[in-house]
Amino acid sequence: MEFVKMHGLGNDFVFLDHFSLTPEKPVDYPKLAQKLCHRQFGIGGDGLIVILPSKVADARMRIINSDGSEPEMCGNGIRCFARYVYDRGIVSQNPMRVETLAGVLTLVLDIKESEVQGVRVDMGEPILKADLIPVLSEVEPVVEQPLEVLGQTFHYTAVSMGNPHCVIFVNDYSALDFERFGPAIEKHPLFPRKTNVEFIRVDSPKEMTMKVWERGAGPTLACGTGACASAVAAVLNKKTERTVTVHLPGGDLLIEWGADNHVYMTGPAAYVFKGEWLGAE
Amino acid sequence: MEFVKMHGLGNDFVFLDHFSLTPEKPVDYPKLAQKLCHRQFGIGGDGLIVILPSKVADARMRIINSDGSEPEMCGNGIRCFARYVYDRGIVSQNPMRVETLAGVLTLVLDIKESEVQGVRVDMGEPILKADLIPVLSEVEPVVEQPLEVLGQTFHYTAVSMGNPHCVIFVNDYSALDFERFGPAIEKHPLFPRKTNVEFIRVDSPKEMTMKVWERGAGPTLACGTGACASAVAAVLNKKTERTVTVHLPGGDLLIEWGADNHVYMTGPAAYVFKGEWLGAE
Repeated sequence: MEFVKMHGLGNDFVFLDHFSLTPEKPVDYPKLAQKLCHRQFGIGGDGLIVILPSKVADARMRIINSDGSEPEMCGNGIRCFARYVYDRGIVSQNPMRVETLAGVLTLVLDIKESEVQGVRVDMGEPILKADLIPVLSEVEPVVEQPLEVLGQTFHYTAVSMGNPHCVIFVNDYSALDFERFGPAIEKHPLFPRKTNVEFIRVDSPKEMTMKVWERGAGPTLACGTGACASAVAAVLNKKTERTVTVHLPGGDLLIEWGADNHVYMTGPAAYVFKGEWLGAE
Repeated sequence: MEFVKMHGLGNDFVFLDHFSLTPEKPVDYPKLAQKLCHRQFGIGGDGLIVILPSKVADARMRIINSDGSEPEMCGNGIRCFARYVYDRGIVSQNPMRVETLAGVLTLVLDIKESEVQGVRVDMGEPILKADLIPVLSEVEPVVEQPLEVLGQTFHYTAVSMGNPHCVIFVNDYSALDFERFGPAIEKHPLFPRKTNVEFIRVDSPKEMTMKVWERGAGPTLACGTGACASAVAAVLNKKTERTVTVHLPGGDLLIEWGADNHVYMTGPAAYVFKGEWLGAE
C-alpha cells in the first residue's frame, strides 16, 4: 500500500489514491484511518483522505479523522487534496470541482512556473442568524455583545461557517489566560451546541493574528473556518478590510469576504513524504 | 532522502542508513532529528536513529531524541536497529556488536524461517548500591522500604539500570491514583536525581504487568530499563523467578536476570513504513 503524507498549516493527512485503482475488496476506511493515523504504530496524521472518482464533480474527497469519525469537510485537507490530484494529473481542470459530504466545492489553484503555490477554497456564505449559528441572543447580527465568564466580561461576535464561532478581539495576548477562558467559553450556556473560540489581535487593516480554541479539540495549529469567521467578524466590527491575512500558529491564510457574500480562503498545501506501508495489512 | 520507520513496543523511530552512503556534507543530526521527528511537519517519531560504520564494533548506532538531545542508549531503539541492519545485510553476524554512547552492546537475534522474531539485548548488571542509584537509604539493598507520599505509605525497591527506578508492588491497579502518585514519587526527596516509577502487579511467578511513570516523560507505552529493574526487584522480593514476561501497555518483554548477574531483555522490533522525504531539505 502506497501513500503520500501532506499538511496544510500543520493539519496533517495520509493520502490514499483510489481514483483509478479500485481496491479488490471493499475497504473499511474508518477502521483503516484509525490504524494508519496512529502516531506510533501507524503513519500518523489528523486524518486519512481517500481520492475517489465522482459522478457529479472532477473527483471525490473522503476524509476520515484519526478516531474514525467522518467530518463533512476540512479546509486544510481539501487544499492538499486539490494540489495532489492536480500534480498527479488525476484532475487537470483549474478551477476544479470536488465532491464532499458538504456538497461540491470549487477550488482555484494558484500556479506559478508549473508549481502549485496555494489553493483558494470557496467556503460559502457566513451565517449570521442567531438561531442558526446557534447562539442565544436577542440582538442580530451578534456583534460586540457582552459575555460573562469566570468573573470577567468579554465582548464577542458570533459567526457560523457551518460550525459556530465566538470571535473576541483582544489588544494583546499577554493579559489573556487562554487555557482557562478557551474551554470555559466553549461550554458557555449562550452556545447550545458549544462553540469554537477565536481570540483575535488586529495588527493592521490588512492583517490579524488568531489564537484558536477548537470545539472538542482545544488549541490547534490552524482552523480554516475559524479564520474565515474571524475575518467576517473583523469586517462587521470595522476593524479590517474585506481581504485580510490571518496569522495562525501553523502559518498564514488569506481570507476574502467577496462582494458575492462568499468567503474565500487561500492557503498552502505541502508535501511531507511518500511511502509504502510495511506493517500488518 | 530515504528512510524507514520502525517501532519497538510503540517507541517509534525514523531510521537513516548512513553506513556506506556517507553524506557529502557533515550532517547536523540533532537539528535533522527535530525536523524529521515532528509529528505534523515531519515524519514523526520519538527519535532519529542513524546507522553508521564503527571501528570497534559491527556497526554504530546514533540516537537523537525529537527534542535534539542525545541519550546514551535506548533498549527499544537498539532492537529495531539490530533487525534493520541484519535484514538489509549491513551486518550479518549474530550475535552482533553495536557501538553506542553507553559502550559496545551485544545483541542476539532470534531468527525463525529467516525472519527476525525478536532481539535480545544485554542490558548489563543492575546497580543496587544506594548512593549509585542514587537513593537516600541506610538499608542496602533498598528492598521493600517505606516511602511516605501525599499522606500514603508505599513500600519500594530501588534499582538502577544506568538510570534510577523505584519499583512498587500493588495487588491491583483499581485502587491506585497513578496520575497523582507517579509524579509525586518521581520528585520525592529520597531520590536526588528524581526517579522512574514502576507499579507492578505480579500475575504469576513467570509473569507480571507494569505501569510506568517515566522520569521527565510521564506515562509511556514501554520502558525497557523499567522492565529490567522491575524483574530484578521482583526476584529480590521473591515474587517471581529470574525469567519473567513483563506486560507493558505497548506489548511484552521477556526479562532474564542471568547467573552472570547481567539482565537480558528480549522484545519485538516492527517495521511500519519506508518512505522518501518530499519536504524542504
